[in-house]
Amino acid sequence: MKKLSSLLALGALMCAQSLMAQTPAPAAAPAPAPVPVEDWKSASTNQPGKEYPKVNSEGRVKFRIEAPTATSVSVSFKDSSEFKKGDDGAWYGHTRLLDMGFHYYTIKVDGAEVPDPNSLMYFGAMRWGSAVELPAKDQDFYTMKDVPHGQLREITFHSASTAAERRAFVYTPPGYDEHSDQRFPVLYLQHGWGENEYGWGVQGRAPVIMDNLLAAGGAKPFIIVMTYGMTNDVRPGGMRDFKIEPFETVLVKELIPYVDTHFRTLADQPHRAMAGLSMGGMETKTITLRNLDTFSAIGLLSGGTVAPGDLADLGAFKTKNRLVFVSFGSREVEGGKTRQGGNPAADIAALKAAGINAHYYVSPDTAHEWQSWRRSLHELAPLLFRD
Amino acid sequence: MKKLSSLLALGALMCAQSLMAQTPAPAAAPAPAPVPVEDWKSASTNQPGKEYPKVNSEGRVKFRIEAPTATSVSVSFKDSSEFKKGDDGAWYGHTRLLDMGFHYYTIKVDGAEVPDPNSLMYFGAMRWGSAVELPAKDQDFYTMKDVPHGQLREITFHSASTAAERRAFVYTPPGYDEHSDQRFPVLYLQHGWGENEYGWGVQGRAPVIMDNLLAAGGAKPFIIVMTYGMTNDVRPGGMRDFKIEPFETVLVKELIPYVDTHFRTLADQPHRAMAGLSMGGMETKTITLRNLDTFSAIGLLSGGTVAPGDLADLGAFKTKNRLVFVSFGSREVEGGKTRQGGNPAADIAALKAAGINAHYYVSPDTAHEWQSWRRSLHELAPLLFRD
Repeated sequence: MKKLSSLLALGALMCAQSLMAQTPAPAAAPAPAPVPVEDWKSASTNQPGKEYPKVNSEGRVKFRIEAPTATSVSVSFKDSSEFKKGDDGAWYGHTRLLDMGFHYYTIKVDGAEVPDPNSLMYFGAMRWGSAVELPAKDQDFYTMKDVPHGQLREITFHSASTAAERRAFVYTPPGYDEHSDQRFPVLYLQHGWGENEYGWGVQGRAPVIMDNLLAAGGAKPFIIVMTYGMTNDVRPGGMRDFKIEPFETVLVKELIPYVDTHFRTLADQPHRAMAGLSMGGMETKTITLRNLDTFSAIGLLSGGTVAPGDLADLGAFKTKNRLVFVSFGSREVEGGKTRQGGNPAADIAALKAAGINAHYYVSPDTAHEWQSWRRSLHELAPLLFRD
Repeated sequence: MKKLSSLLALGALMCAQSLMAQTPAPAAAPAPAPVPVEDWKSASTNQPGKEYPKVNSEGRVKFRIEAPTATSVSVSFKDSSEFKKGDDGAWYGHTRLLDMGFHYYTIKVDGAEVPDPNSLMYFGAMRWGSAVELPAKDQDFYTMKDVPHGQLREITFHSASTAAERRAFVYTPPGYDEHSDQRFPVLYLQHGWGENEYGWGVQGRAPVIMDNLLAAGGAKPFIIVMTYGMTNDVRPGGMRDFKIEPFETVLVKELIPYVDTHFRTLADQPHRAMAGLSMGGMETKTITLRNLDTFSAIGLLSGGTVAPGDLADLGAFKTKNRLVFVSFGSREVEGGKTRQGGNPAADIAALKAAGINAHYYVSPDTAHEWQSWRRSLHELAPLLFRD
């Protein structure tokens, strides 16, 4: 368990750094004090009727903050412009160039770090707060369309081990209710450190990604189950105390039986997968390798790699596992290596050479952030539960 | 339609006043600058791990706001104590006595009105923002327990009339999936002005109320459908432009057929009810009286009253309607009359005298607020869909 602890600590650090500092600047750094392109549009993550924040075509965000008697206003995006009062008395400022996709942030008014009242609220960095969506070239795959829609169901299950009624979200594919004779495989899908069970269904856009994929015939229909993975109730900075056993118990001994009782699942190992992002990927690796008879497919999204040396019994693994999927954002990998260590491309090649159905995906021009993970789900889903 | 418009405008005004000013002080006003009872406990509406806001047994809320360089901090609850810096550098203040239950609020830091970062986020007053829950004597009926749980499903349906993919939440009772041969009646349940389709499922606690009622055998199982009722997309203060037809079309022509196709409903008038709070009650009255062949039961929660004079054809109404339910918070009614006009007790008595199954409920010691509406749902549910 020491190896896991250090991996988790590293991952948490990385994730925390990423959340606090936001994403690293692209390789081509912008010139000093550049003039933003003036094609601003209201962000899709704004509260109803709010004009700001706005985003432009080059990847900046512009804010408008009403703080009439404040002496200082800023946002948590590093290297943002200085905020100045406009003619209307509100404060204005903009960010450096950011990666496409979804970014958490806070505003600061005279030292008070608070959510931007103009933004919808998302759970990340251990709290509900603001975020902004930057349009992406490939956003079509997670754009809501007039296609048959699945359902995102909030379920409540009793957990004896934690003496609590616990929440999970369950995505059921389009047609689940109508085809009452059909049973479905299940993917257990985990969020990252500082996030929760809402992540994949909201900012992860998993239901929209699946609806669109299924409408295009790009994947087999399956159920997705998302629950809270920090059962050990770790506070910020306290990852050293993280223990995986409480979550493993909830997931394997309580949630899976509940789902297999209350949904029309194919309740066997070949039709059960687990994947997760960042800390959720590390949880996935530990739990699936200890429960090869429960899960047949493994997905690690910016959450470590799987090398032949990780497998206690390669022969047994080969007979039981149907899929290993590893992915990272391109900005997380330097010279083939990730910050957590390991060389995922080499590891996946070695697994393939050993006869394992292994896949490696790198998300272009993204870092440890949701755009990497949306794309990774979009790549992973078509590989799952093939006959 | 003029009558409806004026009712809606009045209702919106009342609701807006209620949201901005919060609830009126209880009849017995507290003495000036009283010393709060020092039995503070963290509120159940706090973000994970947050100690403040705290609530005490007499009905006050105490806040702690970190704003190191601010010169002024306050909250939107009227008649709160002045906020002062504590020994730890944070600002502290508390409210007057408040009604039991759920209250929206904002904090203000040097003129910036923002969400309290310590609070979970709720949609009210046209935005996602902070709220606080004060323990109530009767909170048992909406407290999460180890009973069989229904599901709260987020569904997406195509609306041709508004050219959009629209969201609704659907509560399915415990056992819905397991008893695949059973069909269920449906209650369409609407939020108030400035709120949205999340209201009943989150702060309204409708799923918990229903799970508990059903576990105790206190109601027939039914489906609840909740969608956004301001289809006309009215901005704050713009209620004069509100038109009910766009929402009526979405509800009656699009959502009901979708629900009847995608859920195992009893898809006929006797098994279809509509209820709503505040503006949602006014919508309910207008839509049900125009669609007597679609809905057999009507619930108005702080949303007007039904008098015999409202019914164009009393005889036809009697043959088609199975239930009229009207409720208010006790602080909304003075001398038998509500602020919108009308005398609900007298009106309901008159309906009863005319042979209609009519019920009137008054929530003790509450105003135009969620505690009144939680209790009203708890009173209404047992009356619905009786054989």
